[in-house]
Amino acid sequence: MEHLEKHERMQMWQNIQQALINEQMDQFRAEFLELHPYDQAKIFEEQDEDIRFLIYTYLSPEEMAEVMEHVDRDIVNEFISEMVPAFAAKIFEEMSTDDAVDILNELDKNKVASFLTIMNKESSEEIKQLLHYEEKTAGSIMTTEFVVINHDMTVKEAMRHLRKEAPEAETIYYIYVVDSDKKLVGVISLRDLIIAEGDWLIQDVMSERVVSVPVGEGQEDIAQMMRDYDFLALPVVDFQNHLLGIITVDDIMDVMEEEASDDYSKLAGISDVERFGDTALQAAKKRLPWLIALLFLGMFTANIIARFQGALEQVALLAAFIPVIAGMAGNTGTQALAVAVRSISNGDMDKIGKASVIWQEAKTGVITGTTCGILITLIVAFWYGELYLGILVGISIMATLFVATIAGAFVPLVMHRFNIDPAVASGPFITTLNDIISMFIYFGLATAFMNLLIGGG
Amino acid sequence: MEHLEKHERMQMWQNIQQALINEQMDQFRAEFLELHPYDQAKIFEEQDEDIRFLIYTYLSPEEMAEVMEHVDRDIVNEFISEMVPAFAAKIFEEMSTDDAVDILNELDKNKVASFLTIMNKESSEEIKQLLHYEEKTAGSIMTTEFVVINHDMTVKEAMRHLRKEAPEAETIYYIYVVDSDKKLVGVISLRDLIIAEGDWLIQDVMSERVVSVPVGEGQEDIAQMMRDYDFLALPVVDFQNHLLGIITVDDIMDVMEEEASDDYSKLAGISDVERFGDTALQAAKKRLPWLIALLFLGMFTANIIARFQGALEQVALLAAFIPVIAGMAGNTGTQALAVAVRSISNGDMDKIGKASVIWQEAKTGVITGTTCGILITLIVAFWYGELYLGILVGISIMATLFVATIAGAFVPLVMHRFNIDPAVASGPFITTLNDIISMFIYFGLATAFMNLLIGGG
Repeated sequence: MEHLEKHERMQMWQNIQQALINEQMDQFRAEFLELHPYDQAKIFEEQDEDIRFLIYTYLSPEEMAEVMEHVDRDIVNEFISEMVPAFAAKIFEEMSTDDAVDILNELDKNKVASFLTIMNKESSEEIKQLLHYEEKTAGSIMTTEFVVINHDMTVKEAMRHLRKEAPEAETIYYIYVVDSDKKLVGVISLRDLIIAEGDWLIQDVMSERVVSVPVGEGQEDIAQMMRDYDFLALPVVDFQNHLLGIITVDDIMDVMEEEASDDYSKLAGISDVERFGDTALQAAKKRLPWLIALLFLGMFTANIIARFQGALEQVALLAAFIPVIAGMAGNTGTQALAVAVRSISNGDMDKIGKASVIWQEAKTGVITGTTCGILITLIVAFWYGELYLGILVGISIMATLFVATIAGAFVPLVMHRFNIDPAVASGPFITTLNDIISMFIYFGLATAFMNLLIGGG
Repeated sequence: MEHLEKHERMQMWQNIQQALINEQMDQFRAEFLELHPYDQAKIFEEQDEDIRFLIYTYLSPEEMAEVMEHVDRDIVNEFISEMVPAFAAKIFEEMSTDDAVDILNELDKNKVASFLTIMNKESSEEIKQLLHYEEKTAGSIMTTEFVVINHDMTVKEAMRHLRKEAPEAETIYYIYVVDSDKKLVGVISLRDLIIAEGDWLIQDVMSERVVSVPVGEGQEDIAQMMRDYDFLALPVVDFQNHLLGIITVDDIMDVMEEEASDDYSKLAGISDVERFGDTALQAAKKRLPWLIALLFLGMFTANIIARFQGALEQVALLAAFIPVIAGMAGNTGTQALAVAVRSISNGDMDKIGKASVIWQEAKTGVITGTTCGILITLIVAFWYGELYLGILVGISIMATLFVATIAGAFVPLVMHRFNIDPAVASGPFITTLNDIISMFIYFGLATAFMNLLIGGG
């Protein structure tokens, strides 16, 4: 973070820390409230319990709400739990509804119910509505704090309304327009509003081509839409086009980060995203499901090789090339998988079509397979002086890379067809599948041409 | 894309297509210019050459500029190249400077020079300045079309200035304030500006704690800062705090997508991000560097096993467990690698420290290693009836998982230390490194305890 000079930043942190230790509330508030809420949250997170309790008495629920909105979502519940419930409930009242819902969703159901009871009615109603929506849909990430104007207002009236609502609203840069049935009929940017004449009617200056998303839409698609269309906010509607809420770009950035982490972790074979602060046991728990699954799959590979024990007893050197063949198969499969998963998630797949993706991968597999096959044949022939073994390994690599490349693209496509998130077909799974395929090819060929190998060796 | 009703969308596309085929310019313009530029770009991309040339005559350079800003960056240069140079130059004049620079950066240097010569002086000066900045830094993604006001203006004067500048500016929602030396001294949001009294001075209502980034800052850090602080725009300054440009959130979303694709591809061992429209040969070229590197690394593994040929000749079944041991080593290494790379890129690494990351991974490796080791010992002992072989494989897995987990975290940390992008230490590299380590452990142990194995088998 280079935005504040480092020494300036250090100095401020020290002052704040000092004020807390000396229990100087005014001093603390003067320095602390100057900071961006993100920085406030980072300072807060680092305090010990007794200092945190001091902060709870120094800040108003409204000020504390801003801090909590920016505290790391993985640890925020610890802080909520240690607060006096009435104070926590007040904080939820003051928070943006979408943030409040996000945090409450992670809490124990009984606790949520009790917070909702203590809270004022208006806030608890708003929160209850949002709590119903399924995770990772438009409904779960939208906020209900937005500015809405009627189509028959004048620009001047709209501006007056806007000034009044501005402090509460999540964004005021896109203002949505509804008709008398509360249906979404248009949008106007604040930019256009401030350059319009005061006595014009909103319906004459607004854009009628307002882009909206249904409340059940998935967050990944929304993120893509927002990125493609460069929106700062998107309205969310029900099936009758009633305006339910808005999604703002800052929440979408969090969605993008979350989805990217998710895809990345899955490619590496981690069942759930590991987080800062996970203990070794928690980390192991997230990694073991894959490792154990792979261990069992690996036993299949072992079985296949064990069946060819005869061939191995005749030419023990065959074993030497097992890792390189299996490894190449795994790697090429992961490459094809990664490309397929990315094209599915960014929509390219729909444009080019599945058949041509497979055909494309087949051709790519032929090129990479032939190149690597010839290369390894030459290496084994000259390095080990084993021409026939070289040819065997070369042909195995060639066939393996061809099949593995297609498999890498095929598996996520099939999963996508059946509405399973293709990112679940993670790297390790494809790797192990391709291990099995490659050992079949290698030892199958070795057995078939055993006389040549023994004669040649 | 659910935002326009499907049939409505289809109908519009058909109308536009029809208008183009019938060469009805007015009809085409009426329908086409109603669309969001992103949709315009998608329609444009699908046209044949002769229709594209028709479109170039139907749209003004200004209208065409909006389309080109949204055309896929991988193919936009084909279109630029087929245009009359004077028309293309006019399009660059009308585009946002940052988009123009982004596209020009991919063009042949001679072509760029000729466009800059034909262009009007003002635009070419602006573009030239930005072309100098290194790729993936603040300078390369910032735009110079922003609104700046003086600290001694009144709110009313500022609003008047804003209304005048609004149509040209990339965003008007954050307005940056400079002093008489053109140094950045503050920021005010349009939200605060519209609720301020008209005769107040800007310096009294602006926030002085303006967060800015130096022009050489990396784009990944900027994206993280924008996400943490929920900014819609960030000012870019030189070392003397002169305001040079701004970065807007829509560009940052593209950066986030680019960086995520990049990390993902590298984990899968693809040297460069594959794109929609790559031929099989281009795809193969991007994958082959890793595959060939791994092939040579794989020969080391083969060499190690070949050295233990004696052990293999005595107990051929040893070969059966090569893939599972090497595979588990590779997978656990990739998991640890993925976690380390993510923590480095999102800044968590700095918080927890490198030593404790390694320590954490060591503990995780002990847990996963012990679990999988015991499991495979039991499987081999009961399934194959080979107790000693089971213990050997179990201990090998345990040791391997321990070492491989640490290696997976250690390699990216070391690379980070030497300022190499740790994402380059991709999955396949770690996998192969761990193949080698695991084979040493496995065959080393097998040779040491050969008498037990022969006795037991």
